[in-house]
Order: sequence, then structure tokens, then C-alpha cells
Amino acid sequence: MEIIDGNAVAKSIHQELCAELASIKYHRPPCVAFIRVGEDPASVSYVKKKERVAGEIGITSKLHILPESTSQAELNSLIDSLNANENVDAILIQAPLPKHLDERATFNRVRADKDVDGFSAANLGFLCQEEQAFVACTPAGIVELLKRAGVKTAGKQAVIIGRSIIVGKPMALLLMKKGMDATVTVCHSRSENLAKICSQADIIIAAVGRPNTVTADMVKEGACVIDVGINRVPSSQTKTGYKLVGDVDFANVAPKCSKITPVPGGVGPMTVAMLMHNTLAAYKRHVLE
Amino acid sequence: MEIIDGNAVAKSIHQELCAELASIKYHRPPCVAFIRVGEDPASVSYVKKKERVAGEIGITSKLHILPESTSQAELNSLIDSLNANENVDAILIQAPLPKHLDERATFNRVRADKDVDGFSAANLGFLCQEEQAFVACTPAGIVELLKRAGVKTAGKQAVIIGRSIIVGKPMALLLMKKGMDATVTVCHSRSENLAKICSQADIIIAAVGRPNTVTADMVKEGACVIDVGINRVPSSQTKTGYKLVGDVDFANVAPKCSKITPVPGGVGPMTVAMLMHNTLAAYKRHVLE
Repeated sequence: MEIIDGNAVAKSIHQELCAELASIKYHRPPCVAFIRVGEDPASVSYVKKKERVAGEIGITSKLHILPESTSQAELNSLIDSLNANENVDAILIQAPLPKHLDERATFNRVRADKDVDGFSAANLGFLCQEEQAFVACTPAGIVELLKRAGVKTAGKQAVIIGRSIIVGKPMALLLMKKGMDATVTVCHSRSENLAKICSQADIIIAAVGRPNTVTADMVKEGACVIDVGINRVPSSQTKTGYKLVGDVDFANVAPKCSKITPVPGGVGPMTVAMLMHNTLAAYKRHVLE
Repeated sequence: MEIIDGNAVAKSIHQELCAELASIKYHRPPCVAFIRVGEDPASVSYVKKKERVAGEIGITSKLHILPESTSQAELNSLIDSLNANENVDAILIQAPLPKHLDERATFNRVRADKDVDGFSAANLGFLCQEEQAFVACTPAGIVELLKRAGVKTAGKQAVIIGRSIIVGKPMALLLMKKGMDATVTVCHSRSENLAKICSQADIIIAAVGRPNTVTADMVKEGACVIDVGINRVPSSQTKTGYKLVGDVDFANVAPKCSKITPVPGGVGPMTVAMLMHNTLAAYKRHVLE
């Protein structure tokens, strides 16, 4: 059994992006604009991490902080000005947005060639069409993990648990496209026979947000298990009183797997790495094409 | 075992659309523009059928015939003028296009609110997002058949054979969305264990284009089988010397099914009905919203 080290893979990708960026001669560096609405502590911390990694790679970032009370019109106006700004390659709007704002409409307002989160209808559609697209960072990161860990996908059964736009659906589209060629099943809260379906999978991708969704009896001997969940559970063993766990019962599932990702340190770091990858791709489109 | 009568369902939909149209008071009827490039006999016949059905419902149609040698620029220019024409609600470009034209780029050029075929990146993306979208007519027609035949999808295992943009992928997105809630598996030419996967399905949708792809041993007792294939095979029993068959070995599969669609007379007529449904929906968006 091999534990896939997401931190190590992400670090390799950061180094590759640095090297690639150094080879591009242009009068300005890539620039990503972050928009954060309100002061949600998780959002504050995610954006900080993205700013830090961008800086390490040589990508300029500009953080726009809007108050919790921001109206849709004000948010739209900021997006429009960033869409029009030739010096901005990429726009990332940190989710979740306050409830009074329309997340879907907000994502769709970002110009497709700056939508490095890949959540806009345009990029989801390009992904369906197997055209050049910005792919949502978490599923794109999982594909990188699978490739670099030498996991075969062609003809194999991949079961995805979760059907969100952020993970489940783009993950399914990525794994079924030509070149990946997996046989993809998407399960969700309404699925009957979840355990039986999972037990036939060569690859399981759990993106539910509930601890212990995948237990040892649901996993075939030798399967590869990718855990997307990040759940905070009470713990007497940490100073903070809680710890992070995934959707998979890691202790009991891991011994049956050929490969498995841990939480934390599995998929998480890849999401940031792929955001940087997408930002560099946007920059290249803007300055080289 | 019940044979689902696609002709009868399509006829009901035509009548419903007629009634709905009669209730809309506006100074012009709906208008769909057909574009046909070249003289492919199948395309000539498909477009004729669509024109006829449109006329029966009260939808005006205008057929634009371009020569086989049409350049991409000429085709684009026609699409642009139809996009801009306020009296045109819907645009349908009959596929396949001659090889020198870029089918994907052509579909993506049609304005999303006139793209009644649902093949553009924008509409595929809206479908992913579970937003209001024009959905490709064949998968949309299959959903109507399933609903009107009382086939339960929630929690059930649906296996789709084929991963095209025309059928497989939008079909998967439709069946997994909220309200339909099926557990969806997409198989294709590279899938291992196709027979075993199919044999667990409550619903099988075959969209491969090869006769006898689905045989009796692959079908669970009581499954619902939807046959999207239209294949021309030699026959000594017809004057023409050929007959149309689907992807399913109908004679041997049908006795095991709860419900099954025949070829012809199953999915085929629904495709045209849903094109009319989408055209009326486009008209309503343009004149009522």
C-alpha cells in the first residue's frame, strides 16, 4: 500500500511552474485577482495560502476585499472591471459567498479566459466538449495525482461519490474523456447499493463531506482511493480540540488499497497547485497567443 | 413487457405544443432557421421531416441551403446574421458538416438563447450547473419517454453506453441531476466488463451505433432498455434491400425487459418533438420575458 503524498506532488508542480515561468519573456509577470466577500475565517485562510503560493512561484496577486453587505451590482461591477483589465490574467472569487449573492451568476460573469476556477458555464461546457478549458482545480489536481502515481484509468471502473459542480461532475467528465477512458459511475445521496457499487471500483473518489462515508467493506482489495473530504471532528488528542479527517475511514481502508490519499496532505495541496497551473495557462494565452 | 411507443409520445407532445402556442398572443409565430450544408441524403431527409413537423405545430421555418464548398467564414457570417435577427428564435445546423468545417466551433457560434440543439459549450455548461439550458434533443427526448412511461430513476442504476456530446454526456448529466437522481455509469469502447456492468442496470441506454451491442445476457430481468442506435443493415425481407435496427438485440432482449423502445419508432420521433419543444421555449423567452 502506498500513501500518495499530495504535498510532495504539489511542490513538484510549483517547481515546474517556476521553471516554465522563467522561460517566458514578457514585460510583466502573471497576475491573479482574488475577490473575497466578508470575513469567513476559512476563506481568509484559503486566500492567504493562495497568495503565498502565488508569490513563491512569481505570480503577482491582488486581493480585493469586499464587505459582507456587498450588493450583487457592486460585485458585478468589480468583476467587470477585472474582466476588462488587460493586466489581470486570472480572477478567483473565493466561495462560499454570502447568502444574498447569486454564486452561479457570479461565476458565470467571469470572462471564460480568466475563469481559472473553471466554475463558469463556458468552461464546464468546453470540458464536456473535450475542448481547451480551465478545469476546476480539485478534479484537475486529482487527475495529476493519479497520473503521477501511475494509476491506470483506461477501461477501469471509477466510482465518484458526490455530484457537485466543484468536484463530482467535472471529475466525471475528466475521467471519461478520451485519453483517460475510465468507465465512470457517479453516486450521491440518493444512490441505492452504494456499498456494492463501490466494492467493484478500481478507483474510488469520495467527495461527500461526511466522515466514514467509505468503509473497508466497500473497498475492493487493491483499489486506489482518493479522499476529497475535509471534515473537522472533535479530538481529545489535539490542542485545538479538533482534527481534520476525510470522507474515508483511513485506518481500516488503507490496508486494502494499492494507493490512497491522506487527509490532510492529499488532495488539498493539489487544489492550490492547479490554481497556479491554470493562472499560468491563462497568462500564456494572454501574452503568447 | 411493454414496448414504449415513441411515435405516440411524440404525437402527444406535438399536440401539447400546438395548444401551448395557441395560448400565446404575439404578433408573429415562432421561427426556426435550419442550415444545411451540402446534399447528404440523410441530412436532406432529416431537415425535411423537421420542417414538416414545425409546420404542423405552427412554427415558421426557413431553410438555408449552402453548397458543400462553403467556407467557415461564409457559414459564420450566416450564423451571425441569424443570431442578430430578432425574428429568428432558434437556429439548427444539421450535422454532420463537411469535413473542412469545424463542427464544434460552428455550434459554439450560435447564440445560447437560440441554440435549440443544445450542442454549444454555453448550454452544456448550463446543464452541468443545473441551470435553465437547452438540452440536446435526443437525451431530452429520452427523459420525456422515461417520465411518461413511469420509469423510476431516483436511486436507480442507469448505464449509458456511449460518451458523445450528442447523447452520452448530456444524458449522464440529465439523469444525475436533482429530481432525476439516478446513479449514472457511462461506458464506452474502452470499458472493461461492459456485460457485467450492464447486467446490474435498472435502465440501459445504448447509444453506440453498432447492432447487437446489447444482448440478452447483459440485461437484468425487469430492466428498462432505451435504444438510441439507428443502423442500416442488409435485409432480404425488404424491397430496399436493407432495414433499420438499433444497438439492442431486440428479439432476445425484449422478453427480459419491463419496458423497451423499438427501432424505428422509439427514440427517433422524440428527437424531433424535443427540437420543437426547445424552439417554442426559445420563442417564449424572446417574446414573453
